[in-house]
Amino acid sequence: MDRKDLEALDQADPLASKRAQFTIPEGLIYLDGNSLGMLPAHVPSRLAEVATRQWGETLIGSWNSHGWFDLPRKVGNRIARLTGAAPDSVIVGDTISVNLFKLLAAAAKLRPERRVILSDDGNFPSDLYVAQGFRDLLDDGYRLEIVAPGDVMAAISSEVAVVMLTEVDYRTARRHGMAAVTATAHAHGALTIWDLAHSAGALPVDLAGAGADFALGCTYKYLNGGPGAPAFLYVRPGLQDKVQPALAGWWGHAAPFSFDLDYRPAPGILRNQCGTQPILSLAALDAALDVWDHVDMAMVRVKSEALCQAFISLAEERCAGFGVSLAGPRDMAERGSHVSLRHPEAYAVMQALIAAGVVGDFRAPDLMRFGFAPLYNRFVDAWDAVDGMADILARRAWDDPRFLARKAVT
Amino acid sequence: MDRKDLEALDQADPLASKRAQFTIPEGLIYLDGNSLGMLPAHVPSRLAEVATRQWGETLIGSWNSHGWFDLPRKVGNRIARLTGAAPDSVIVGDTISVNLFKLLAAAAKLRPERRVILSDDGNFPSDLYVAQGFRDLLDDGYRLEIVAPGDVMAAISSEVAVVMLTEVDYRTARRHGMAAVTATAHAHGALTIWDLAHSAGALPVDLAGAGADFALGCTYKYLNGGPGAPAFLYVRPGLQDKVQPALAGWWGHAAPFSFDLDYRPAPGILRNQCGTQPILSLAALDAALDVWDHVDMAMVRVKSEALCQAFISLAEERCAGFGVSLAGPRDMAERGSHVSLRHPEAYAVMQALIAAGVVGDFRAPDLMRFGFAPLYNRFVDAWDAVDGMADILARRAWDDPRFLARKAVT
Repeated sequence: MDRKDLEALDQADPLASKRAQFTIPEGLIYLDGNSLGMLPAHVPSRLAEVATRQWGETLIGSWNSHGWFDLPRKVGNRIARLTGAAPDSVIVGDTISVNLFKLLAAAAKLRPERRVILSDDGNFPSDLYVAQGFRDLLDDGYRLEIVAPGDVMAAISSEVAVVMLTEVDYRTARRHGMAAVTATAHAHGALTIWDLAHSAGALPVDLAGAGADFALGCTYKYLNGGPGAPAFLYVRPGLQDKVQPALAGWWGHAAPFSFDLDYRPAPGILRNQCGTQPILSLAALDAALDVWDHVDMAMVRVKSEALCQAFISLAEERCAGFGVSLAGPRDMAERGSHVSLRHPEAYAVMQALIAAGVVGDFRAPDLMRFGFAPLYNRFVDAWDAVDGMADILARRAWDDPRFLARKAVT
Repeated sequence: MDRKDLEALDQADPLASKRAQFTIPEGLIYLDGNSLGMLPAHVPSRLAEVATRQWGETLIGSWNSHGWFDLPRKVGNRIARLTGAAPDSVIVGDTISVNLFKLLAAAAKLRPERRVILSDDGNFPSDLYVAQGFRDLLDDGYRLEIVAPGDVMAAISSEVAVVMLTEVDYRTARRHGMAAVTATAHAHGALTIWDLAHSAGALPVDLAGAGADFALGCTYKYLNGGPGAPAFLYVRPGLQDKVQPALAGWWGHAAPFSFDLDYRPAPGILRNQCGTQPILSLAALDAALDVWDHVDMAMVRVKSEALCQAFISLAEERCAGFGVSLAGPRDMAERGSHVSLRHPEAYAVMQALIAAGVVGDFRAPDLMRFGFAPLYNRFVDAWDAVDGMADILARRAWDDPRFLARKAVT
């Protein structure tokens, strides 16, 4: 396999034209779309319109006339299409952590006699923190049980209130079987919460088909909504009117403008809203989702698997001799859309690679992570990234003291 | 008093030059800055810079190189200056409702033997909803006691864990005495949470001087941060390291990038952060706060009182005969920076007024509300608003069926 073979794959790629819809700095090989997606080129002008015309000129009237109030539902429905959810079962707002708290509280109230939250050590630490905060706030016998990813199925019992998992491991890309885990959970009377941070926009998700009870995800990775763009939250239609919102806010009230002193939840998914949402960020996300119009997630998956497979093959061919090895499963069906490679000096190698114009990221203790966003990444990006990495490893460029000093990295 | 007298007041106004820093649609009399503040004129270009250059070009690197991570603390310190808070005692992020939940949880853990949350019926209903959600989630004997504003002091007892009040009533502009209520609460061993939604940027607040334990507020009203801009949260320095965060998120972790599975709160105010914040909205807020540089809140208060007094005098002189009356106290020392007028057909009158180019808002059941933002409102705005209202009332223009049909208003 040489670079020409990858160029040929790009030429045959039916998604290739999507790349032109993004702003891509000249010469940059960006393999970090699983951390912050690239800027869809039309977003700044939409943002300018919202700030200058809607806020600046229509002012308060924009809440109705420019549909600001309806944005969480409208944007939610756009994400529903990409995640196999029924209309009006996804709502956008708040952060992934806040939404996880809402869903944990909802699940706990629906299973009042149970006290176990089951998760795994491949979950985002941030999700585990939220569960710990929830457990400690309630101080009512709740236990957070954390097992190895492969032990989740066996750990599901009739004591478990909710199984809280991230579908795709942010480090190794290992993917849980959403339908199988959910079925097992349901067989034991437990509910499920799926974090789709590394799934939405990366691979086909079938929330309805899998029978998932709750889900949530972020929009600033593969959905390209912008830094810290509002998160989304899913509730299975049959559960929606049974949810008792713990974060009871006026946007989730049945009649927000009656200014009643008593909270009454809105019907359906809307009750999961809480306070007033950041409209500039939400409007940017809405605009960003335009690039997904008419995109078939099955095609996205085909390209994602091919990109990841090409990268893995090239990396093993050219870098295994330098101590680089694949993290996570080898079977594409068990993986998400990023590839992590282990190396004892992963931090320094990644710093050197970034300095050379190939952006991935480092995850402690020893992972170099490369995200493949099928809407804008090319097959030649995989080649160029491996080429750069092989060069750095061969020259031991990562011994350069500039790259060795660790600091906070995103 | 005629319009020329008000023009003279504008000419003598030491804050008059601030108006030029805002985008103000030609001919619009905007008295709704207590709902959505006007657009500082330089914000769109800052927003374009953040989207196009920071997100679009520097991408993931911007979290460090453009200080995105530090925005909540940086912007918090700018708001601290305006609210009489010590440095590093205010943090920005999430919504006012989510932040209220955090503070209620913190207060409850600090007073574990107490079960009463005391508030009043002049509080925002949205704040009461959050307290109800908190009470119902914990399901542990908590009671939300809601009294009349004038009865708060007498209702504070040794059973009260926390007194949760909004300083300035969103309807009547009645202002609580923050120092006196806080002192009484402390005398009974209770904590205080102050909602500053209608205070921050409207009048001098002295959080440190009043001894307030907790406070929070929104930034899209008098602080002009943009629609739904992130909220702020204050914790008294002596309490900061005693707070046990209920919404335990990775931004509030002592070492967010070590990816530990266990939550350890960051020192100080930082632990009150939860998930990743919406950077576009946060950057717009940061830019918007530039207009407050070097502004003396005492001068703001002088102008605010004069504006409100002029408006009240004019309205009573010209509209009392049509059934209009002042809501809330007459003494300026007991008021915030808006004026609400009662009228049996308040909704229709306000609709007619908006159609005539004077924007205030309606609050059920019978209030027309007019906010005076001292950085951009002029004395002639008070004249023109009353003039328009008197005309509508004299002509009974509000009988026009266009204005009678009620719908959701912001």
